[in-house]
Amino acid sequence: MLAEFDLIRRYFMSPQEAQATDGVALGNGDDATLLLPQAGQQLVVSVDTSVTDVHFPCDAPAYAIGHRALAVALSDLAAMGAASRWCLMALTLDQRVFTDSEMAEHWLSEYASGFHTLCQRHATILVGGDVTSGALTIGVTVMGEVPIGKAMTRSGAQAGDAIAVTGALGGGAGGLGLWKQGERDISHPLLQRYLLPEPRLAAGIALRGIATAAMDISDGLLADLAHLRNASKVGAAIDLEALPLVDGLEHQVGLEAARKAALSGGDDYELLVTLAPADVALAQAELAKLGIPLTVIGRCSETLGVTGVAPADYIGWQHFSGVTL
Amino acid sequence: MLAEFDLIRRYFMSPQEAQATDGVALGNGDDATLLLPQAGQQLVVSVDTSVTDVHFPCDAPAYAIGHRALAVALSDLAAMGAASRWCLMALTLDQRVFTDSEMAEHWLSEYASGFHTLCQRHATILVGGDVTSGALTIGVTVMGEVPIGKAMTRSGAQAGDAIAVTGALGGGAGGLGLWKQGERDISHPLLQRYLLPEPRLAAGIALRGIATAAMDISDGLLADLAHLRNASKVGAAIDLEALPLVDGLEHQVGLEAARKAALSGGDDYELLVTLAPADVALAQAELAKLGIPLTVIGRCSETLGVTGVAPADYIGWQHFSGVTL
Repeated sequence: MLAEFDLIRRYFMSPQEAQATDGVALGNGDDATLLLPQAGQQLVVSVDTSVTDVHFPCDAPAYAIGHRALAVALSDLAAMGAASRWCLMALTLDQRVFTDSEMAEHWLSEYASGFHTLCQRHATILVGGDVTSGALTIGVTVMGEVPIGKAMTRSGAQAGDAIAVTGALGGGAGGLGLWKQGERDISHPLLQRYLLPEPRLAAGIALRGIATAAMDISDGLLADLAHLRNASKVGAAIDLEALPLVDGLEHQVGLEAARKAALSGGDDYELLVTLAPADVALAQAELAKLGIPLTVIGRCSETLGVTGVAPADYIGWQHFSGVTL
Repeated sequence: MLAEFDLIRRYFMSPQEAQATDGVALGNGDDATLLLPQAGQQLVVSVDTSVTDVHFPCDAPAYAIGHRALAVALSDLAAMGAASRWCLMALTLDQRVFTDSEMAEHWLSEYASGFHTLCQRHATILVGGDVTSGALTIGVTVMGEVPIGKAMTRSGAQAGDAIAVTGALGGGAGGLGLWKQGERDISHPLLQRYLLPEPRLAAGIALRGIATAAMDISDGLLADLAHLRNASKVGAAIDLEALPLVDGLEHQVGLEAARKAALSGGDDYELLVTLAPADVALAQAELAKLGIPLTVIGRCSETLGVTGVAPADYIGWQHFSGVTL
């Protein structure tokens, strides 16, 4: 018998005591966590839920499930240009999938490893959480900081600004497609992109003060661009040929399907930013230092709406689409 | 068809624009929320997950589900003596339970009403969230503030301190029992206690600087007291006859079962505090101003362990108990 408190202690307590500089005055193990945000910073918070068979395949590797649940949440901090500091994890576990305790321990240890490894990579401390039973669901709350007034938002784009994306697109949809076809070699580059996305935190910080608007691409480029356009009250002209497609995707599915994946597949967790044309070269140089490409894919226009893509490409990820709710 | 973004906008955007004094620099609708914590305060954060048929009956009124999911999270802030300020809600909705859109709208509107009403009562602003599909699960992250160094923790109890509880105990278990027996009149006092618990935020703030240790009673008095004893390295002598039983419970189930509910039933969301004996009267006077009783139910001892109760009473709520995980 593994009680809830043992579970939490064993896998989710921070491996080492938090340091004073970490801003954690009281960590795991009390009713709540006490944090000391830094003076001159705004607190940047977001929550993301990952549900089995909705956001990830139920048979995905546990390591990837832990990594991915945190990555998609951190991606929102990246989009604000925030430095990540702390997170909370609400884990709902379906005990019925474990036929024996060895299997359960293995799953949990792999899951925790995926989660903690990404935490360490981004100096993020797991400061609290909750473990309950039910259908596997992971809610991650992330908290970061940004100097007051310096956060990137969705609403600052101006007509004439360049539209650019970090990295390459289409890997999320391409990886999901491969997984559905039975590919299980997790070292496959497309599966890496789908199952182990890297939140663009360093890129977000580097683009702070340069980009006029930013958001992350989680629902698909066009769907997310629509949010940015609405918030900024601009239109967009997209240059289809400029879309940076993830390596190997065109070879796998053909050019048309690859572009469709890039436009509306979702799950890419790249940053979508707008920039004054004069700042594009500076932004590209800053990201080049991090080894991250930044590709101009279009331009903001005064005329609302989108040009350069067919209406059929304009379908984003909607949890409730097609359902009469 | 009700898309995810419409859903969020319709029911979960803050009804009015946040004020500058609310510390919300950028609210719902961007990748993340920007908050401005007050100088001289520590940030107090906690997350609680409520799963259908685990933490509440699937056929509970939607208003109560919304209220309760927030209440159990706020209860943790109360236990720290924090003032509640902001919350995030991760709602996973099972669309299959809605046979038509009218039913869905009614459920969501009632749910949102329960959630928002409690938000307003405790000056808590819903600053972000996430709506996904899956088994009904609600994760609530709450954020409050407490002056630096003034939070109540579980670890400050000393041998000789009085052990006291706010309000009355046994209502959670009593209400759950009634619900299982088919009682559906939500105005029944025991159902109110189970389905619509009131987090003791004002009591927590009033006890700040007086209580030596504090926590909330969610898993059952004895189970929670064990956490406090372990954190403070003290034992406890309980006075069974002093337990404040919720009105009507003894009449409903008899004295023995009522005491058992108070000791280990859980879901009461009262505060469990320890106090120097000289401060008991002051604490009681402060809570009397709020109309909340504070009852001494025992004393901390140097000898570890608990006296005054039978071992059989010593069973708390364990999500994974009895399951080989």
